[in-house]
Amino acid sequence: MLTFEHTTLGQRVLFGSGKAAENLAAETARLGARRVMVIASDLEAEMARTVAADIDVALWHHEVVMHVPLEVADRARAAATEAGIDLVVCVGGGSTTGLAKAVAMTTGIPIVAVPTTYAGSEATNVWGLTEAARKTTGIDDKVLPVTVIYDAQLTLSLPVDMSVASGLNGMAHCVDSLWGPRADPINAALAAEGIRALAAGLPAIATDPSELGGREQALYGAYLAAVSFASAGSGMHHKICHVLGGTFNLPHAQTHATVLPYVLAFNAPHAPQAEARMAAAFGAPTALEGLQALRATLDAPKALADYGFTAGGIPEAVQVALPAIPANNPRPVTEANVTALLEAALTGADPATVSDEALEGAAR
Amino acid sequence: MLTFEHTTLGQRVLFGSGKAAENLAAETARLGARRVMVIASDLEAEMARTVAADIDVALWHHEVVMHVPLEVADRARAAATEAGIDLVVCVGGGSTTGLAKAVAMTTGIPIVAVPTTYAGSEATNVWGLTEAARKTTGIDDKVLPVTVIYDAQLTLSLPVDMSVASGLNGMAHCVDSLWGPRADPINAALAAEGIRALAAGLPAIATDPSELGGREQALYGAYLAAVSFASAGSGMHHKICHVLGGTFNLPHAQTHATVLPYVLAFNAPHAPQAEARMAAAFGAPTALEGLQALRATLDAPKALADYGFTAGGIPEAVQVALPAIPANNPRPVTEANVTALLEAALTGADPATVSDEALEGAAR
Repeated sequence: MLTFEHTTLGQRVLFGSGKAAENLAAETARLGARRVMVIASDLEAEMARTVAADIDVALWHHEVVMHVPLEVADRARAAATEAGIDLVVCVGGGSTTGLAKAVAMTTGIPIVAVPTTYAGSEATNVWGLTEAARKTTGIDDKVLPVTVIYDAQLTLSLPVDMSVASGLNGMAHCVDSLWGPRADPINAALAAEGIRALAAGLPAIATDPSELGGREQALYGAYLAAVSFASAGSGMHHKICHVLGGTFNLPHAQTHATVLPYVLAFNAPHAPQAEARMAAAFGAPTALEGLQALRATLDAPKALADYGFTAGGIPEAVQVALPAIPANNPRPVTEANVTALLEAALTGADPATVSDEALEGAAR
Repeated sequence: MLTFEHTTLGQRVLFGSGKAAENLAAETARLGARRVMVIASDLEAEMARTVAADIDVALWHHEVVMHVPLEVADRARAAATEAGIDLVVCVGGGSTTGLAKAVAMTTGIPIVAVPTTYAGSEATNVWGLTEAARKTTGIDDKVLPVTVIYDAQLTLSLPVDMSVASGLNGMAHCVDSLWGPRADPINAALAAEGIRALAAGLPAIATDPSELGGREQALYGAYLAAVSFASAGSGMHHKICHVLGGTFNLPHAQTHATVLPYVLAFNAPHAPQAEARMAAAFGAPTALEGLQALRATLDAPKALADYGFTAGGIPEAVQVALPAIPANNPRPVTEANVTALLEAALTGADPATVSDEALEGAAR
């Protein structure tokens, strides 16, 4: 039986390398905006000026801080209101988009987002704010940018290692979308297209960082990763990585890149349709083979031990992760099998060893 | 280079067999509607009553006429305004949804659509009205239903032959989306998922019309067909069929089913990425083989001659169709090659004969 509930968020995407300034001018005109605020960090101010070259900017705002502290958000909100702003344009990564969302949230001013990384925040209605070192997130359709302008030229300054780490993070979003709590076939189709694009784009970036074709595919794939993941919600992979990052302070990108093949090997035999979709998207005999070939090409991180995790941490990690893993996970999770997964990821063992056949064989 | 402009329409989809009444009640509550108008034709009035069993209905409206004549629309609009309606629920096929759209267009009242066929109108922002035998269509985001409730049980009364014809029409929407004037990779991913679902669902309906699994896949596929086609626009296939239907009065469904393999054989060798996507979606070595195997299973119509078209009509059909075919069609169209396509479709010749290799071979 096919039963699902899917909310498609309405948004316009303008995609074209070298076209950000032209597309922003057209979009500003289409929206009838007269008082535009451009948000960009100091580091990206120059890039933002070239993107905004063809529009009148009423207000520049450069105070961008990671995780959007509330006082930073409040200053941006006050500045926008005082200047009578009717359109916020953000040029930058996740923190910049996050600040624009904080402004939209209280003022209702629409956003046009011009992302320069693969963060994906521009494609979601999720906001995040930090107050007294505590991050709050929520959902509000007002914070969804009305238009996203993608220009792969703006990502050329993103170094290869960060591009790859960020791209593999997008890949994790796609894979986890296939068994997230709100997984449905529409998310699956978009996630598979994201896998295809990222698997094509990331090796091309690693081979020639200045070549635009690979950057375009990766940027497009990262957009689909965000769309599908925002709709499907966090699955087993993100629940585990969240614990490893939050409780054990392991580095975000490396943790995701390391854990992903283990979760894939763990779940795939119990999710044959998802497996077939992913395998086709990778253009490989199996999804795991596709992911592992990609990881080998990219020289991706292999073992959690390399990032400070130890066997002593596994019991606590399992205790925290286990209840967070969604009930609809394709393979039922137990203390034993999640422990086995983390043991394998710790040392970089062959992911195939975490499949249930392998674990049952070992238990005999 | 990847350059495109894609507008995603925001919409909620609730999909579940036997759940229409429950989902409609939940959705009516979520939207806070207090004065609901239900539109359903006389033929579907009883079905509509079961769908609306759990909500208060302020106004029933049963005057539904094909192609939405303006005077019929005006009566529905007046009735809605007079009754202080704040939500229109339409239960039925394309004409019923069309009438709801006509009401929304002038009144701004939101729509919840409960489709009972594969027409797909519920997933688009396109409206159509007929005045003095002339059909006008347009685009207006106000007419896009905020929510669509799909329940495959409501399609059980759709006879097998109509299900198949309507499903193949959806298939034509998917295929043509791959080379429509606004074709882009997002449309392509959704269209491919639609092909997969329709190719799975239609044979299951033909085998056992009372089985819900096939009906679910077909309904889901028809939804994606509408989403991708509305975004990508009419490609070569629809331009040709429009002429055959409009100028030569050939029957809609049969014309689409007959012409599709010829357009596919014509374009596919010039659109290798689209071809690969379609082949994968059909689970066949080539897209054409996948479509032909499906058509054989469904005993689909084969030759335009069987529907009254004659060789004498070909020159006029080519004259009218040629300038309408989008400039971005993968294979350049000429009087000669469109003539060859129609000659083959007339007699039901092997579609492979319209590939350029075959035509060039014949010309030598």
